[in-house]
Amino acid sequence: MINFENSVGIVKTKYFSFEEKIKLESGSDFGPITVAYETYGELNEDKSNAVLVLHALSGDAHAAGYHTETDKKPGWWDNMIGPDKAFDTNKYFVISSNFLGGCKGTTGPSSINTETGKPYGTSFPVITIEDMVKVQKKLIDFFGIKKLLSVAGGSMGGMQAMEWAIQYPESVSSCMVIASASKLSAQNIAFNEVGRTAIISDPNWNNGNYYDDDPPASGLSVARMIGHITYLSEESMHRKFGRRLQDKLQPNFNFDIDFQVESYLRHQGQAFVDRFDANSYLYITKAMDYFDLTQKYGSLAYAFKDSKSKFLFITFSTDWLFPPAELKTTARTLISLEKEVTYCNIDAPHGHDSFLLEVESQTRIITNFLKGVVA
Amino acid sequence: MINFENSVGIVKTKYFSFEEKIKLESGSDFGPITVAYETYGELNEDKSNAVLVLHALSGDAHAAGYHTETDKKPGWWDNMIGPDKAFDTNKYFVISSNFLGGCKGTTGPSSINTETGKPYGTSFPVITIEDMVKVQKKLIDFFGIKKLLSVAGGSMGGMQAMEWAIQYPESVSSCMVIASASKLSAQNIAFNEVGRTAIISDPNWNNGNYYDDDPPASGLSVARMIGHITYLSEESMHRKFGRRLQDKLQPNFNFDIDFQVESYLRHQGQAFVDRFDANSYLYITKAMDYFDLTQKYGSLAYAFKDSKSKFLFITFSTDWLFPPAELKTTARTLISLEKEVTYCNIDAPHGHDSFLLEVESQTRIITNFLKGVVA
Repeated sequence: MINFENSVGIVKTKYFSFEEKIKLESGSDFGPITVAYETYGELNEDKSNAVLVLHALSGDAHAAGYHTETDKKPGWWDNMIGPDKAFDTNKYFVISSNFLGGCKGTTGPSSINTETGKPYGTSFPVITIEDMVKVQKKLIDFFGIKKLLSVAGGSMGGMQAMEWAIQYPESVSSCMVIASASKLSAQNIAFNEVGRTAIISDPNWNNGNYYDDDPPASGLSVARMIGHITYLSEESMHRKFGRRLQDKLQPNFNFDIDFQVESYLRHQGQAFVDRFDANSYLYITKAMDYFDLTQKYGSLAYAFKDSKSKFLFITFSTDWLFPPAELKTTARTLISLEKEVTYCNIDAPHGHDSFLLEVESQTRIITNFLKGVVA
Repeated sequence: MINFENSVGIVKTKYFSFEEKIKLESGSDFGPITVAYETYGELNEDKSNAVLVLHALSGDAHAAGYHTETDKKPGWWDNMIGPDKAFDTNKYFVISSNFLGGCKGTTGPSSINTETGKPYGTSFPVITIEDMVKVQKKLIDFFGIKKLLSVAGGSMGGMQAMEWAIQYPESVSSCMVIASASKLSAQNIAFNEVGRTAIISDPNWNNGNYYDDDPPASGLSVARMIGHITYLSEESMHRKFGRRLQDKLQPNFNFDIDFQVESYLRHQGQAFVDRFDANSYLYITKAMDYFDLTQKYGSLAYAFKDSKSKFLFITFSTDWLFPPAELKTTARTLISLEKEVTYCNIDAPHGHDSFLLEVESQTRIITNFLKGVVA
């Protein structure tokens, strides 16, 4: 049985659709769009207590609580969202939505194109972080919320949070950017490109037309394995697995699994195939690659010049995917613009994944930060 | 035309074969074996000036000079081997051999099994660094060399060099270990495992029986792309490519190549397919994964207790594949054993690849080190 203490309990994913097309950053128009979302807590009367939580690459709208009484796992940020947690649902109305291009209920490449009656596949347009945020704005408008108390996200969620503060300065009181970056580095792009190449080289990918057939499972699995290496620090891999053999005393001297770390990665890769769409992986990593606030706005200072929100930046000492130095530079730029900025680098061993695991320190920092925010 | 100044000039790969089987670390016997090798400089009368150079994962026996007058590139360590270079061929007789399990002339999975008349494929035995060194010893015996003035290698070559100093303490006057490690870390194993999974999931791999058919080119290409990310530092990727677009001013908004770093990686992946055997990639990375001197000998100190050689360890500040700290620990252990040890950490931006690129500093260090070595 689930222990519902400090939990938002049983929740349901809801759907919001709009017919009118939106203008994408690529220049093309796209619609209709359905958005999958969940909410936790109650929206207050003047609609001033809403916090929008933004997920990372493989996340979904299900950020907290359970869908059924027999669920094995709660939502992906359940340790941070709930009564008396960092995002305290006694105080805040927390909204979490699956982003455009995903495969968890919001329109994406696996959705049916109403014009053809078939899944979009690679006829889905290439989208950006800004496009995702534009769709989220529609959802917030639908709630009649004029101003979000906060937008908050880790990793790619942090990129969306920054784009919110830039695109909708009047609609955001505070912005929390965690384990993220103002742009992807050459190394980040390189890892994404190898993952995409693995998917595209899988014969089952078939130019993205695999929805009536076997999906490119091995390509997607390899992409996920690469991702997982970058989410952990060398130190956490060492602590978790070291060079321990998997269920044996001697190596196999063949190509079966020898080491625990191999078993872990293969499991992560295979499990991902059951819950994720390979085309979505292509589109979302591309949206990340394109993310570069300096290039887009001319400079970081220019990007944020009209932002009116308070900012909280959190980085983790062993995060080598999005190294602390990058976000620290962003924080410094905002300080030079005389924005209200808090920057914390948390000494944590878990690498990039720390934003999902370092509950205590993040809770303390976020709770204090939110105390000072008024919608 | 090639500029032959300071070059060993035109060289030829030679072959040495022996019929008797060797005892592999796995316990099985294996033979016959052919070894591809090259030599540069002249062996002196008392055979006391021989230096054995050991290559890395994708290297071969062709370490210096050119095979033909129209070659575009010299051997892989040509900047270090030649008249007046670090391995000065006016003084030393340099031997370079392709290791067991490779695909560059020495017996490996793509070689013909004389018993079946077909390529070994995955019937080739799983081999170790020690097995490779055992084969190299046969080559040295064939030359009638009792004691090598030095064994030297970068990356996986450094692992072979250490195993030489351990296995054949009477046969090695000095040992140079560059950009290497006394064991693979969990992260190292993880990267290797993803590369192997990419190869094995390629339908063309066909359990290793592809020699009459198309090879698993896309799997091997993905494996190589992953490798290349680990060979460069984030800094060198940033310097080399940054976020520069490939031959365009705006991103494509499709899945073609957008960034220079993508183009570079795809090129590296595809070029590798033309010159390397996928099965060899599996066997060699497995040999690396198994390399762990502490586990094998009980402790690092015990591993090296009988070694009689002088040691030179070189690491590079931005090498995150084999971080300096690991080899520094090995050097410290040898100092505690009162061995003669030189350890240098070179401040270099190129990551792991520095051992192929940092010519000046390595030349200075190696030249000085060799001055103090007497066979």
